[in-house]
Amino acid sequence: MTEKNIVNGVNINQLFGTINQIEETPSLARFIFRAGNRWIDGGHNRTTIKGFYGAGQEDSSRQASFVIDNDEPAILLGQDKAANPTEFVLHALAGCLTTSLVYHAAAQGIEIEEVETQFEGDLDLRGFLGLSDGVRNGYENIRVTFKITADAPEEKLRELCQLAQKRSPVFDIISNPVPISIQVETK
Amino acid sequence: MTEKNIVNGVNINQLFGTINQIEETPSLARFIFRAGNRWIDGGHNRTTIKGFYGAGQEDSSRQASFVIDNDEPAILLGQDKAANPTEFVLHALAGCLTTSLVYHAAAQGIEIEEVETQFEGDLDLRGFLGLSDGVRNGYENIRVTFKITADAPEEKLRELCQLAQKRSPVFDIISNPVPISIQVETK
Repeated sequence: MTEKNIVNGVNINQLFGTINQIEETPSLARFIFRAGNRWIDGGHNRTTIKGFYGAGQEDSSRQASFVIDNDEPAILLGQDKAANPTEFVLHALAGCLTTSLVYHAAAQGIEIEEVETQFEGDLDLRGFLGLSDGVRNGYENIRVTFKITADAPEEKLRELCQLAQKRSPVFDIISNPVPISIQVETK
Repeated sequence: MTEKNIVNGVNINQLFGTINQIEETPSLARFIFRAGNRWIDGGHNRTTIKGFYGAGQEDSSRQASFVIDNDEPAILLGQDKAANPTEFVLHALAGCLTTSLVYHAAAQGIEIEEVETQFEGDLDLRGFLGLSDGVRNGYENIRVTFKITADAPEEKLRELCQLAQKRSPVFDIISNPVPISIQVETK
């Protein structure tokens, strides 16, 4: 075998194997991700993430949960014990665009050296506070800067950035509407 | 003073002080949150969050950065060193809905005892892999269950959950479109 099996840390044989399996059995593509959260105090709360459903079964590969806190900085009346939820949105978008780029580059055999991204989101607190109907609650805009170093022509790297946007799940979640249904149980 | 100054861990005087200041000077409501991310290997990358702009100035209250990783589980070709980006979306939504509920309850003088939430998101991998034009890349649906315990009538708690949805920045970001602009720099 002359072709590399691992490109950008991604197992290419496994990647193409997954694609083939999903083409044969599309239901294997269905995933359900989950999170549970518990309020601690003020703006401080804690999320636990472990199990998910995917590839036709409940995943059991994770031995331990990921535990992640949210808080708010002092000016937003918190204790600043963690990043705030809107900052975690930028984190999720950053990770997803980068992984989308790296995986799709790997599928094309393009070796990436570095990917560095910067994110900024504009938020007007009048939305959250209910002080102005003309102001939305969430980000009005998100600006992203990608810096990529790779052994490929500049045009190819720009194409990869386009592909990352076109394929990234979190890019889609943020730039298009996702229906959210909420049930309430009270004690 | 007979009224409590701290409700649900939220300083009510500071909250109403903030509202008054923003009503007088709406530009104080403008915030810019930021995140920087660097690819490590495969689906593993690392976000650094520290500075932000808000209330008319660059915030300098944070002494250290928050460092948060993304990764993917084995079945998604990662090393499972952290939750994945779509799971972080649920974390951000959980934190924001909870904080929105707790802060708005505090503003109304309602003491919350417990808030526990569960999140599920449906994702079809054919979107990310580009295997089907009829499948979106991101979550098709997100389901949320809220459990609240508080010294208030059930109807009031249901109203608070509605208010949390109506005011939460991350609920807005996910359920409505946010424009994302991307610049690419290559070396």
